[in-house]
Parts: sequence; C-alpha cells; structure tokens
Amino acid sequence: MADDDRRTVPTLDDSVRVVDGAVLILDRRVFPEKLVWFRAESAAAVAGAIRSMVTQSSGPLYATFAALELTARQSAALPLDEARAALDRAGSLLAAARPTNAHPRSAVAAVATAVAGASSTGELVERAIDAARTGAEHYRSLSRSLGRAAVELLPDGSRLLTHCWMDSYLVELVRAAHEAGRSYEWVATETRPYLQGARLTAHTLRELGEPVTLISDSMGAAALSPGASIGPIDALVTAADRVSLDGSVVNKVGTLGLAIAAHAFDVPFYALVQEPDRTAATGADIEIEMRDPTEVLSTLGRRTASALVTQAWYPAFDLTPPRFVTRVVTSLGAFPPHEIAARFGAPAA
Amino acid sequence: MADDDRRTVPTLDDSVRVVDGAVLILDRRVFPEKLVWFRAESAAAVAGAIRSMVTQSSGPLYATFAALELTARQSAALPLDEARAALDRAGSLLAAARPTNAHPRSAVAAVATAVAGASSTGELVERAIDAARTGAEHYRSLSRSLGRAAVELLPDGSRLLTHCWMDSYLVELVRAAHEAGRSYEWVATETRPYLQGARLTAHTLRELGEPVTLISDSMGAAALSPGASIGPIDALVTAADRVSLDGSVVNKVGTLGLAIAAHAFDVPFYALVQEPDRTAATGADIEIEMRDPTEVLSTLGRRTASALVTQAWYPAFDLTPPRFVTRVVTSLGAFPPHEIAARFGAPAA
Repeated sequence: MADDDRRTVPTLDDSVRVVDGAVLILDRRVFPEKLVWFRAESAAAVAGAIRSMVTQSSGPLYATFAALELTARQSAALPLDEARAALDRAGSLLAAARPTNAHPRSAVAAVATAVAGASSTGELVERAIDAARTGAEHYRSLSRSLGRAAVELLPDGSRLLTHCWMDSYLVELVRAAHEAGRSYEWVATETRPYLQGARLTAHTLRELGEPVTLISDSMGAAALSPGASIGPIDALVTAADRVSLDGSVVNKVGTLGLAIAAHAFDVPFYALVQEPDRTAATGADIEIEMRDPTEVLSTLGRRTASALVTQAWYPAFDLTPPRFVTRVVTSLGAFPPHEIAARFGAPAA
Repeated sequence: MADDDRRTVPTLDDSVRVVDGAVLILDRRVFPEKLVWFRAESAAAVAGAIRSMVTQSSGPLYATFAALELTARQSAALPLDEARAALDRAGSLLAAARPTNAHPRSAVAAVATAVAGASSTGELVERAIDAARTGAEHYRSLSRSLGRAAVELLPDGSRLLTHCWMDSYLVELVRAAHEAGRSYEWVATETRPYLQGARLTAHTLRELGEPVTLISDSMGAAALSPGASIGPIDALVTAADRVSLDGSVVNKVGTLGLAIAAHAFDVPFYALVQEPDRTAATGADIEIEMRDPTEVLSTLGRRTASALVTQAWYPAFDLTPPRFVTRVVTSLGAFPPHEIAARFGAPAA
C-alpha cells in the first residue's frame, strides 16, 4: 500500500469519518457548491442521513460501518446484553434506511456475525469496531479488483459514457487505468433530479485529472448515435446498485434508457457491481425505491416547474433487463448476464 | 369560428403581438415564473429574440410574420425599391435566426411571394400585412387539422408521454380531443436544459384542464417499460421540428432516446408536423443546431454543475431514424415513415 501516498484522494473518497462521539458525513446534497459535514451523534441519526440522501451510492456502506463503530463505542459501559441490544437496534435502523441500496444490510450482517460469540462487553465492542473497519477496507479492496476488471475491457483512449455516480468504483477504475497506463475521456450525464453527475461525478473526475464533458440526461441517445459530434462513445459504463441472478441491472433511474440506446447503436454496456445479489433470482425480486415526487418539481431546492403542476413521479432506480446488458463486471471479473446465475447462484463457498 | 369564444386560450397560445411600432413576444425563458413581454422595435430585434430563445417551437413562425408586418408598416413612407429592400433585409435576418427550425424561412418565403408583383409602396405594405396575417392564420388552421389527425390515433383514456413543447400542435390536439369527447392523461418530461416541459408544456396542459405528471428526462424509459407504476403509457407523442422525406424525425434532443425506448417496449411513437420538409431527402440533409454548451452547466441561470467542470455538449435537436417512428402525423393525416416520400416527395400540386 506504499502507493497510496502518491495517489490523489478525491474529496468524496474520504467522506465518512468517525470522530469522538459522532460520525461525520460529507453532505452530498450540496457538494461541491458547499463543503458541509453532517454530524450524526447516534446510529439513528446516521440512518436518517442515509434516508434523506446526505450520502448515497457507496456512502451508506461506509456510513453504516461508521455508525456501528460509534454505537459499539457508546455501549462500552453497558452490560453485555444491553450492549448487544443497542448494536441490534442500530443495525435494524440502518438496514431499513433505503430499500433498494443493499449496502447497509450487508454491513449490518457482517458486524452481527463478528460479534455473535462475544462473551463480554469489551470483546463485543472490540469485535464490532474491528469488523466495521475490516468491512470498509474489504469493500475498498473489492472495488479495487472491480476497477481492474473494468479496465481490462476498456482499451487506452476509450471514450466512456457514464450516468449518476459510481463512487468508489469510479475512483478505483480511474486509479486502475492510470496503473495500466491507460487514459479515458468521460461523458457524464447530469442525472436529475439530484444532479449527482453534474456535481459528484464530474467534480471527482476533474479532481482525478480526467477530461469530462457534461450532458443533460436527454442527450445520452444522441451522444451514442453514429456520427455524433461528441462521439464515438466506446462504452456505456455505470455502477449497479443491485444485479439479480438473471443478470438484470438495477441502477439509478435513467440507466435503462441509456442501455437501450447503447444496444440499438451497438455500443457495449458494462454494469459494475462487486457481486450480484445472491438472494434475488430475477429483477422482479428487487424492490424499486419510490422517492418524494416533489423533488422532480425543483432543482437544488428551487422550484423549476410551473406552479400549476402538482403531480410528479420519482422512481429512484430502474431495472435494465439482461438483453440490454453486455457484461456484468464484478470483483471476480466480467461475465455476460446469462452466466451470472451459474457463477454466483450457488451458495458462496 | 363562433366556437373560438368558448375555447380556453392558454397564455402561450397568444404570445406574439404586433402593437404600435413594435412586436411584443412573451419571454419563454422565464415563463411561467415571470410574465415578461420582450419588446422588439425592428425585425433585427425579433431575429435576435428568436436566436436567443425568447420564443421557440411555433413561436418563431408567429414572430417572423409579426416582424414582417412591422417592417412593412415602418416602410410605408419609403419609395417602392427601398421598401422592398427593407423587407428583403428583414427576411434575410429572420430566415437565418436558427438553422434547424424552418418556420421563419417558410414565413419569409410566403410574404416574399405575396409582394413580388406590387407596383407601389402602398400595395407592397398592404400585401405584406395581408400575407403575414393570412400565413399565421393558415398555420393555426393546419395545426387544427393536425390535432384532429392525431386524435384519430389516440383512443379515449389514453396515457400519453410527451417531450419538450408542442406549442400550437399541443393546444389544437387537446381542443380536438375535447371536441371528439376524448380525454387523455399526460406524462411530460421536464426537458433540460431549458425546461420547456416543466414550464411550458405542463403549465399549458394545466391551463387547459388536463391531468399531467412531470418526470425528469432520465425517467422516460422507466415510464415506458412494462409494469411501471406510472403506466401503461399508450403512446409517445411529440412534435417534430423537421421530418425528411425518408421519415426521419428531427426534434428536441431527447426525442431519440424516448423513441428507441418506446420501440423496445412496443409503444407507438407519433411525431407531429404540419408537413414534411420536401427539400430534405434524408435526415442527413437537416442541419442540427449546436447551442452554447454552458447552458448545460446551469439551470435557469444558476450554476448547477461543479465549478471544476468546463466542458459540455448541447445539440438542440436529435435525429430519430424512421425505424423508431410509428407514424408521422401531418395536416393531411398520419402516414408510416416509409410512405412519406411517396406522399410528399412530388412537387406540391
């Protein structure tokens, strides 16, 4: 890890911190216009921050581990059964924060497994903190493998269209490309209504020194079409919040439209996920989170729709059927969607 | 036309007016948040207003006719050759205002034809004013026929997805539906970067008493996909700025992505245009206007992208190949794209 010192660390790559008595979470709702740290002094406050989009994408995973570490520290003076109950309560709140993003649930499960056999409060606290830190580091290391697997598919000089914000996957993909001596050009959608593309992705790519061109969400198909003055686009590359065993990809709403357009114009679509969801046989088994539709009527807090309009619709994610997916890229390598079940469907070894 | 008195006239359906010494144009860049009339005291000022998007869609047609009427009035005291030269200069400026929108050019041509044989300044002024007013009324009447042809394709109770702002076509389609005893539900995209859908379309539909649900541009494919909680969508209905003789549809950027998604999910796409462009054999013959890319970095004048981002791309239109178009709906009825050349390719009778 000696290399780490020479690496650029984008602001969003270090955006959840445990400090004395609190978890600090960089508020992505206003970043990069403002650099505001949300201070959560309990696991419940962290769960609320996840629910209200203070952080998203990989952020809820780091925030959940941090909240569990905080809860463990806050329980150090309690009897064992009360400390365990406090950790359980925190886990329940965090796991339920958002229905589609499964990161908090897997983080909670990892810590719960680690503390199962603890025979004293001291041991429980120590194991919880260790599991939380190890879990976060494990996620980073899987993202690193994932980034390398993606770069293998993307030749030097590729022009890549991306949507929303790939978080750790994006940062590790760029680092892996640099290590491999490859450079890319990026086209990023702005990603309404929260503008994660315009704010988080484009900003982070610039921090990493990457060339990026911003487009409105409506321009994706035009960018992918033959002869586009911004093109040719060599691949559509997005993260996936969840991938089911039939190779369906659930990701930020808008991914579906881009994937269909890419398919129509013979541009490959690579969806990145550390590993598919072994509990979801098909896309239908993944719940699509519906968010407050009034977000669609405004932009960064300012009303942008006519005052006469009262109805809107806001699914946070959409589901791309496997026929529009070229490869699901995982920490173990890239697979065609129809091979996912065979590769990941069996119980983990 | 006795019916007109009982008709609802939405604000945008009467948004260009000739007054003493000027043309007043409702500023669509800030409507409906603000009701501001742009005052243009010359044809050059009207051309500037068209170029800078004070008005768009059908607006430039009405504005061009109004500017030619204004120029004719301002030339009443000139010798015939100077009056004619003034009208020619005005026509050149107006015709060149925007490359993809062909309305100003056709309006200029109509007035030029009408004044060709005038033998005095008085006659020239009178003919120009008459041609301008007749031309605007003819456009309205063709839009009325177009609206009726569209309604024939859309059964009562249809849920329609639309993009950007269909202007006179939208108003006349809704009026024709009401006349036929049909009612529709509308889903409108917000249409970044200018938000014509969120501001103009959704507002006008509400003024007409229609139910409308607003979505972000990224949500179109999700809305069209089977089982969507907002669906089923029965048809994608948009205007077309231009249609070439091979049935290619040029319309606001974003139309292409919606058309491809509609095609993938077996939802018909109806593109409305009074008549195809007889001078364009294929889509490649239509110039796609590129606009100032910095518009993509902001929303209604406020910076919404990271300050680190300097590059953006803004094609105002995109081209939908005929394979994704179900019917081109014209004032003469609806035709499959491959029949357009045979129906409209011959010189006009």
